[in-house]
Formats: sequence, C-alpha cells, structure tokens
Amino acid sequence: MAKTIHTMIRVLDPERSMAFYRDAFGLEQSQRFDFDDFSLIYLRNAENDFEIELTWNHDQTEAYSHGSGYGHVAVVVDNLEAEHDRFVQQGWETGNLITMRHDGDPLARIFFVTDPDGYKIEVIERGGRYV
Amino acid sequence: MAKTIHTMIRVLDPERSMAFYRDAFGLEQSQRFDFDDFSLIYLRNAENDFEIELTWNHDQTEAYSHGSGYGHVAVVVDNLEAEHDRFVQQGWETGNLITMRHDGDPLARIFFVTDPDGYKIEVIERGGRYV
Repeated sequence: MAKTIHTMIRVLDPERSMAFYRDAFGLEQSQRFDFDDFSLIYLRNAENDFEIELTWNHDQTEAYSHGSGYGHVAVVVDNLEAEHDRFVQQGWETGNLITMRHDGDPLARIFFVTDPDGYKIEVIERGGRYV
Repeated sequence: MAKTIHTMIRVLDPERSMAFYRDAFGLEQSQRFDFDDFSLIYLRNAENDFEIELTWNHDQTEAYSHGSGYGHVAVVVDNLEAEHDRFVQQGWETGNLITMRHDGDPLARIFFVTDPDGYKIEVIERGGRYV
C-alpha cells in the first residue's frame, strides 16, 4: 500500500528556510542532494518520519507564487500559547490564536505562521484527533 | 517537539477527490467535519498517521489555481511499474517512469500523477532512503 513520505515546496534561499524550519519546528536536515541546477534538502525530526522536501532551483531569483488551491502543512505542539509567544518574539509572521468549533464544541486551538517563502503552516494544540 | 500531521489542499468535488485518493493510494476517510460553508475531510491509510486534509468550500465553482511554489506530496509503493500500468489503465493523468540519478548513481525511480484538481503526486519506488 502507498505510504505518504514527504511534501515538496520550492524555496528561494535554502539556508533561510532551514533556519526557520529548525527554529520553529525542530526539523533538521536529514539528507541533501546537490545537482547541477537544483538541490533537494530533506527535513525531519524524531516525531515523524514524514519529511518536508525543499527544492532549491539555483538560478531562481523571482519569488515563487502561491495559488488558491494548496493550503498548508499542519503540526501539533504541546503548549500552543508558549509557542505562539515564542513565534511572535522571533518576529515571524504569526496569526492570532483561534479556537475552531464544530457543532458548538471546541475542535482545535490553532494559529498560522508564514514561512520565509510565504507558505502557511498551521500550528495546532496537541489533543483530541490532532496528535 | 512539533510533529507534522497533515497537509491541506482545497478541492472542488470531495467525492471525486476521495475516490481518487482511495483508488490510487488506499487513503480512506478517517474523519469528516461539515461546517456551514465548508467541510474538512481527513484521509489516511494504515501505512502512516500523516493525513491529507481536503477542504471543500461549498460555494466554490471556479477551479483552484496552482502557483509556482508548492510542489507535491510523495508516496512510496512496492511495485512501481505495476502501479504505473494500473494508473494509466485507470485513465489518470500519469507521467512517464523516470530514474533520478545523483552523481551518476540511481537515486529513485518515480512517476508523477495528477489528481482531479491538478495537484501533482510523486510516486516513488520503495527503497534506499525512500521507505
């Protein structure tokens, strides 16, 4: 059966992206492949073997565009408010804390942060179905 | 530490998307939340607790756009050629089998398939670092 193993995003500055994903989510480089025109950098941490694959096209200078279809990667964290405070202090583009409700009951507490290339990441408080 | 748990894409027709992800990758609905204006549908299989989250905005009629930044989700499968044959027979938009090389050595055998909303999925033969 098929197993989902990674999601790929294109980034302008791999060092900038690696610093963000490391500092924000503890995702470290697991492997890197440099080709003539591009590089692939895989990021993961001990929580999951699912990886984020960064593609760096060496000649790209124009910012990548974001269509209306793709949404975000989501992560869970233990202490949402502490993480929210930390993200704001880091100066990252961080949205407000939101409680999502379904049929009147709390479903999830979340906020969004935007990575250096404009990709959104949803940060969810660990609990319920989000573990 | 943060754990990656899902990736979200917006889709026009949830039944069409669910059929594709089920038939292509064995990903079944794990949970669904219907709100007034939108629905969230989580897809997973036994291989990984990482989920694909479909967002269906009920009033959306225009096809979603795809920017230049976001790439794809990747899955690994055991028998790439059999899956490639099956995908072609299903009539899905399926690219050619490709062997990626790094420094002259084979790195991965892959093909791409396009889902009903135009999102690419990379299908990789299980092996090496792709497990």
